[in-house]
Amino acid sequence: MSAIGLAPAAAQEPFRAPEPGDLVGQGPGHHTVTVLGAGPAGLCTAYELGKAGYDVTVLEARFRPGGRVWSIRGGTEETDLDGETQRSTFSEGHFLNMGATRIPQGHVTLDYCRELGVAIQAFPNQNANALVNYTSETPLTKTSMTYRAARADTYGYISELLQKAASRGALDDVLSADDKQALAEFLKDFGDLSSDGRYLGSSRRGYTSEPGAGIDDGTRLPPPPALSDVVRSGIGRNFGFELENDQAMMMYTAVGGMDQIYHAFHRRLGDRVRFGAVVTSMRNVPEGVTVEYTHGGVGRSITSDYVVCTLPPHLVARLRTNLAPDVLAALRAPKAVASGKLGIEYSNRWWETEQRIYGGVSNTDKDIREIMFPFDHFHGDRGIVVAYYSTGKRQEIFEPLSHRQRLAKALAEGAEIHGESYTKNVGPSFSAAWRRIRYSESAWASWSSKSPEYKLLLQPADKIYFAGDYLSHALSWQHGALTSARAAVAAVHARAAGPR
Amino acid sequence: MSAIGLAPAAAQEPFRAPEPGDLVGQGPGHHTVTVLGAGPAGLCTAYELGKAGYDVTVLEARFRPGGRVWSIRGGTEETDLDGETQRSTFSEGHFLNMGATRIPQGHVTLDYCRELGVAIQAFPNQNANALVNYTSETPLTKTSMTYRAARADTYGYISELLQKAASRGALDDVLSADDKQALAEFLKDFGDLSSDGRYLGSSRRGYTSEPGAGIDDGTRLPPPPALSDVVRSGIGRNFGFELENDQAMMMYTAVGGMDQIYHAFHRRLGDRVRFGAVVTSMRNVPEGVTVEYTHGGVGRSITSDYVVCTLPPHLVARLRTNLAPDVLAALRAPKAVASGKLGIEYSNRWWETEQRIYGGVSNTDKDIREIMFPFDHFHGDRGIVVAYYSTGKRQEIFEPLSHRQRLAKALAEGAEIHGESYTKNVGPSFSAAWRRIRYSESAWASWSSKSPEYKLLLQPADKIYFAGDYLSHALSWQHGALTSARAAVAAVHARAAGPR
Repeated sequence: MSAIGLAPAAAQEPFRAPEPGDLVGQGPGHHTVTVLGAGPAGLCTAYELGKAGYDVTVLEARFRPGGRVWSIRGGTEETDLDGETQRSTFSEGHFLNMGATRIPQGHVTLDYCRELGVAIQAFPNQNANALVNYTSETPLTKTSMTYRAARADTYGYISELLQKAASRGALDDVLSADDKQALAEFLKDFGDLSSDGRYLGSSRRGYTSEPGAGIDDGTRLPPPPALSDVVRSGIGRNFGFELENDQAMMMYTAVGGMDQIYHAFHRRLGDRVRFGAVVTSMRNVPEGVTVEYTHGGVGRSITSDYVVCTLPPHLVARLRTNLAPDVLAALRAPKAVASGKLGIEYSNRWWETEQRIYGGVSNTDKDIREIMFPFDHFHGDRGIVVAYYSTGKRQEIFEPLSHRQRLAKALAEGAEIHGESYTKNVGPSFSAAWRRIRYSESAWASWSSKSPEYKLLLQPADKIYFAGDYLSHALSWQHGALTSARAAVAAVHARAAGPR
Repeated sequence: MSAIGLAPAAAQEPFRAPEPGDLVGQGPGHHTVTVLGAGPAGLCTAYELGKAGYDVTVLEARFRPGGRVWSIRGGTEETDLDGETQRSTFSEGHFLNMGATRIPQGHVTLDYCRELGVAIQAFPNQNANALVNYTSETPLTKTSMTYRAARADTYGYISELLQKAASRGALDDVLSADDKQALAEFLKDFGDLSSDGRYLGSSRRGYTSEPGAGIDDGTRLPPPPALSDVVRSGIGRNFGFELENDQAMMMYTAVGGMDQIYHAFHRRLGDRVRFGAVVTSMRNVPEGVTVEYTHGGVGRSITSDYVVCTLPPHLVARLRTNLAPDVLAALRAPKAVASGKLGIEYSNRWWETEQRIYGGVSNTDKDIREIMFPFDHFHGDRGIVVAYYSTGKRQEIFEPLSHRQRLAKALAEGAEIHGESYTKNVGPSFSAAWRRIRYSESAWASWSSKSPEYKLLLQPADKIYFAGDYLSHALSWQHGALTSARAAVAAVHARAAGPR
C-alpha cells in the first residue's frame, strides 16, 4: 500500500478505486463520516477515509478494537447475555483468539499487516502428528490415529484401488496406454505401493519410536487396518479441508494475538475512535446522518455527511432508524451462526513432550469437533489449547451451558481422543458462544450473496453505507470485512468527489 | 531431558541407557575423553559425557561449531577446495542454512532445542502458493502452476477415475456396496467432484483475484487442463514428499539459523571445545588413545582414556592411524554424496508482494530442483531465497562451477519458473558444494546399514568410538548424528562403569 498516515498527502493524487493493498487519493473539500463499529470493517473504513483526508469519527460500544477479532488474555472480562461473567486469568504472554485466528496468503489482511507493521507467523492449520477420532459405527470407531497414519492408509488404499482398476482395463475408454503408465508411476509414489501395486503399510504412517542410531531402524506402528475398514470408517473425511482455497497451508496469524492488527489500526486513528459509545439510533436527515449514542451513561448525538455502518446487520435492525422497510427486512435476513471456542491453559505442554504435537488440529465428530494446539511458546512451561471450536448444531449444544459445564464436556471429549493427560494440569480456561456475546450476537452471518436482500444492502440507504464481512464473498473472514470496508470507502469517495 | 550442566549432580544416579530426551547418570572415577569434531555428533557427545562427569576435550578444525549445520551470515568467509573464496555480505539478521534447515517433530533434535533453550519456529515445507514446473515433453511442459492448482487437478482427476471405475463395478470383488458408498462420499470431497462424479475444476485451484466485497466472487484461474494432460505431465510427481515421515508438516527450524543449536551446545561446553585444532593422527596406545593435531601452526598431542571420533569417515581414513585394515576399509565404504545450495538475497520480497508466496518450496526437474522461500522476515524489505538445493547428478552440474557461474545458472532457471522478478533486485549471494568444502568433503554418506562395514564401525576400534549420522538410520539428519552420539556415550559409559 502507499503512504501511510491520516494527514492528507502534500501532493494530491487523483482518486482511484482501491486495488488490493492500495487505496490512495484525497477527497475534495471537507467531509465528515461517522463509522459505526471498530471491528475490522469499521477500523479499515476509518483508516482509509482518513488517508484520503476525511474527518472521521468511529463509535464503538466496547472498550477495545477488533470486534469479533478478540484475543482473550489475563484480565479479559466478559459478561454474556445470559449474565455469566468470566474473568480470564491466563498467564502473561498467552492468549486465545476467540474469533479470527488464521489468515490465508491471498487475503488482503496480510497487506494490512505489512502496511501497519504487524508481525506475522505461520499458523499450523494441519499437522501430521495431530489425531483423528470419529464415533460412527464402523471398524475404527473411537480410535485415535494420527492424521499421518490416516492419510497414509487412505492415500495408500485409494492408490491401490485405482491402480487395480486401471490395470484391469476398466478405464481404457478414458486412459491411453501412456496415461496408464504415467498414472501407475504417480500412484506408486502417492500411495507408497509395493512393486505389485498393493498398499501394505508405509513408513509414512509414522513410528512409535523414530529410527535412530546403529541398528535401530525404529519401531513402526502396527500394520494398517484393512482396506474396507479404512474406507468405511471415513478416516479421511476431513482431508478436503487442507485443500480448500482458504485453508491450504501455508496459513498465517498475527504474532501475539490476531487483535494486534486492530490495535495497530487504532494507534493510527488515535482519539478518532470513541470507545464505550453505544449507538441507539441512526437517521438520515437533510444535513446528512444523525447518530445518537450513549457514552458513559450520557446521551450524545453526532451528525455527519455520511455514515458507514459496520454493526452486525440484525443489531442494526434493532436501532431506532428511519430506514425503509425493505432495508430493515434485508438487515434481518442474514441468520446468526452459532460458533464458539473454549481455551484451556495447561501448566505443561504434554502435547509436545508426550505426543510430539507442535501446533495443528485434531479432528473428531464429537461435539468439540476439533482441538487446536498452540502455535506459540513452543517448549515453554504452559500453553493454551483450543479445546473446542464448534459451529452450528455442535455449538448449539455448548451455547446454553455454563462455562463450567462447557469445560467439563470439553475435557471429557478431549480425553477420549488425547488420553489422560488431557485432564491433568488444567489451569485457567475461558469460553464464549458468539450468539451470546453482547454487541455481536452472531459468529457470522449465513445468507446468500444472490439474495435481493444482499444486493439491496450493497446500495447506500441515502447517506448510510453498510459494510462488513456479511457483505462479501468471504463470510466470516477478516478479508471479507476489509474488502467490504474498502468498497464502502470507494463508494463514499466517489460520491463525495462527484456532485452532492 | 533432566538436569542440565556439566558439574556432576550432587546425588549420584545409577546410569541408564539414554532414552529420547533423557540421558543421566555419572560415571565412576575420573575418565578423559577426546571428541573429534564439533558438529552435532561431537558436541552432543561431549555435552552428554560432561553431564555424566567425564573430562571432555573437543577438537574442531573449524573456528565455529555445527559442522554441516552451517548458517551463512554477513561476514562468513570460506575458501573451497578449488581455491575459490566467497565472503558473504548478507544483511544483518539474514542467513542461509547451507546444511540442515528443517526438523521433523519426532526427532530428538527438538528435545535438545528444548533442553538448551533454543527457540524454534515453523518451517514451511510445502506451500500451496509455491510453483511446480517440469520440463518433460508433455502437454504441460515448462508451465508454471501453483502447487495448489496442481494438487486440485491431480486429486480431482484421480478421484474422478476411481469413482468411475468403482461405479462401473470394476472393483466389486474388493469393494462391498457399503464400501462403494463410503468411497464415493470420500472421493466427492477429496476431488471436489460434481454431483455426477466428474472433476470440472475447483475453487481449490485458487484465484487470480480472491473473492471479496459485494458482488466480487473473485477471478478464477482458467479451466483445468484435460485429465490426460494432467496425468501424463506428472505435475503431481512430488506430492509424495509431503507425505514422508520425515517431511510431513508441521516441520520446524531454529529461530535465527539452525547453527543456534550448536552455539547453545558450545556455550554449555565453553573452553572444552578447542577450535582451529586440525587432527592429523589418532592411535590406540596402551594408555588409551593419542591424538595429534595442529593448533595455530603448532603440533600438539593429547592422550585420553577414550576417543569419540565424529569426523566424516572418509576423512578419518586419511589420518595417520593404527586402525586395522578392515576398519579403514569400512571408513572408506560410505560414498560422499554431492549436494549444495545457493542463496540469493533480494532487496525486495517480490515472492510475497507479487506472487503471494510466504515461505515454502517450488519444485522443478531443472538442475536447480527446488527454490525455497524464506521462513522469516515476512513483510520485510529483503530476504534470502535458496535458489537451488540440489543433490546427486543435478548438484554435480553445479559443483565444478564458480560461484558466479552457479548464480547465473540459478537465476536463468529460476526466472523460467518465477518470471522476471527473479532476476531483479539481486543482492549478495553465497553458494557451497559440500564435497568441495574442507573438513566435510561430503554432504552426507550414502551406504547401507546392512553392510558389514556399517556394522563394523558400530563397534569401537579398541578405545576409539565412531559416531555421526552416517552410523544411523537417519542419514543426513541432525537426529541421526545426535542419536549416534548418544549411543556412543552409552557405550563409553557402560565400558567405563564396568571392568576396564
